[in-house]
Amino acid sequence: MEQRFINLNYGSGGLLTQKLIKGLILKYFPDPILKKLEDAAELRIDNKNIAFTTDSYVVNPIFFPGGDIGKLSVCGTINDLAMKGAIPEYISFSLIIEEGFSFDDFEKILTSASKIAKKAGVRVVCGDTKVVEKGKADKIFITTSGIGQIKLRLGKDKIKPGDKIIISGTIGDHGIAVLNQRLNLNLKADFKSDCAPLNLVTNKMYNKSFEVHFMRDPTRGGIVSALNEAIDGTSLGIIINESELPIKPEVKGACEILGLDPLYIANEGKFIAIVEKNDAKSLLSFIKKDFLGKSAEIIGEVTKEISGVWLKTSIGGMRPLLQLEAEGLPRIC
Amino acid sequence: MEQRFINLNYGSGGLLTQKLIKGLILKYFPDPILKKLEDAAELRIDNKNIAFTTDSYVVNPIFFPGGDIGKLSVCGTINDLAMKGAIPEYISFSLIIEEGFSFDDFEKILTSASKIAKKAGVRVVCGDTKVVEKGKADKIFITTSGIGQIKLRLGKDKIKPGDKIIISGTIGDHGIAVLNQRLNLNLKADFKSDCAPLNLVTNKMYNKSFEVHFMRDPTRGGIVSALNEAIDGTSLGIIINESELPIKPEVKGACEILGLDPLYIANEGKFIAIVEKNDAKSLLSFIKKDFLGKSAEIIGEVTKEISGVWLKTSIGGMRPLLQLEAEGLPRIC
Repeated sequence: MEQRFINLNYGSGGLLTQKLIKGLILKYFPDPILKKLEDAAELRIDNKNIAFTTDSYVVNPIFFPGGDIGKLSVCGTINDLAMKGAIPEYISFSLIIEEGFSFDDFEKILTSASKIAKKAGVRVVCGDTKVVEKGKADKIFITTSGIGQIKLRLGKDKIKPGDKIIISGTIGDHGIAVLNQRLNLNLKADFKSDCAPLNLVTNKMYNKSFEVHFMRDPTRGGIVSALNEAIDGTSLGIIINESELPIKPEVKGACEILGLDPLYIANEGKFIAIVEKNDAKSLLSFIKKDFLGKSAEIIGEVTKEISGVWLKTSIGGMRPLLQLEAEGLPRIC
Repeated sequence: MEQRFINLNYGSGGLLTQKLIKGLILKYFPDPILKKLEDAAELRIDNKNIAFTTDSYVVNPIFFPGGDIGKLSVCGTINDLAMKGAIPEYISFSLIIEEGFSFDDFEKILTSASKIAKKAGVRVVCGDTKVVEKGKADKIFITTSGIGQIKLRLGKDKIKPGDKIIISGTIGDHGIAVLNQRLNLNLKADFKSDCAPLNLVTNKMYNKSFEVHFMRDPTRGGIVSALNEAIDGTSLGIIINESELPIKPEVKGACEILGLDPLYIANEGKFIAIVEKNDAKSLLSFIKKDFLGKSAEIIGEVTKEISGVWLKTSIGGMRPLLQLEAEGLPRIC
């Protein structure tokens, strides 16, 4: 039998990643909680609902405008908990370091991870450190896990026709900042990752009575992946209005030069909220009050008229937003 | 200023690992829970005591007699929870895969991880998958985190003079099995890692009323590291009797050939229990009833007469069991 191998596309966050997870990993770990494939698992401990999540960070380069692998790893795990309606509380921090990595860079990463954890009000309570031979890892990989109590029950099953879709700010910033740094593009603009702990907004939001149905942070695969996952397995559709999408002109320009679609580019400090239509405007102004949400917009709505995710273009056409096999942007987080 | 670099010894589990953690990581993450440097963090969620732990696995080779990186990563996290007096319940499973890794090997690893999780009664509820370019990782790295409810309060502060020290079985099996495989030593013996989920014993043990004070699984750095960590920061001492130490003859032989001391070699399916002296014999026979504990022995005791960890040799001498700077055995787990 022919041997098959795992290629980079399986880690892109596109359809091949879904295939690997649904076709293979769930075959061996068929736990009903895991099968939901949410940003965080929902556990019942005693009579409390606890969110539990993990992510490995392999971003290349490890330092980029707006952040580094340390900040990213802490924010990413905070955000996965926040997207599950939880208040992030405890974080683990596990390191795989390549022999020869400099203490200076190591301290820089610890500094930014520590700073952002403090700012976000989460505690780093356990960790691990492994060192592998030169050439057996790429500088440093960080895996963070997190725990938090669920404050608001969210889920796909709550999404219904008429719901409005809010994005908390401009899209594509993280992916373009990392690519610009990695490829030495020297594009003449001040690209900066949006990497941020979303609980600074969501902790407050979950204390209000907004009828939020579903939350997701559009990381690998961008908002197209996040929206497709939101309605995956349902007969619902989503229509996004191109004219409402907040995109920085320089990010839009970079995407045009590089032939990329910002709707597929990773974000690390944005969330999509799917919310009861009557609450959309008040939630939007609540989000806009916060620094992290100042460019938030209502960008579309859920419908039962068509299935799948669609873009209503600025000139009035309709274009399907299909999940790609792979985004072709490995190691973006 | 001279640049300093992290070398392999910092990941060995010896004094240099301690130095990296205490000198640097705790400087940036000074959380009182992390500062305890236990196998698992003890969290308070509502009024429940929850254990939370994480470990990254980079073992080389990834397949070895008695296990593989998948089984090891699940057992290791189960064991860290068990050593904290907890019933392991939920596990996360996060993968960093090198491009070109074969699906066959991947399925083998998922199979054994899945099998052992099932046997141990823990649920794999969340995970992540990243793929990096060929040459940027070594086949596969796995990071597991775990959560469990604490059943029995254990801690250094409970250790007192007179306490007996139990080891749950033969020492050095994991380290020698991995080394034999890695170095192609072709030693003519059936070495096998002891890799096993210790909760198969401890879940039952914690339901009884044995007065256990402290538990630790002697992984990197072997039982010397584990025992030194047990009394670190106290004025207590530990005396181990060489004649009581359970060691397989082939492991002893291999250690002699290789110039290694089995007391410093990693184990992945053994625990050290420090227990009230009057309970030691009954706990020993309880442990011995279980397959995983059939070679358990009482190997020493806690004393206030001397400080540090000492070996009473078979011929009656006393030898200090000092933690080494580094064990020189990287990537043993």
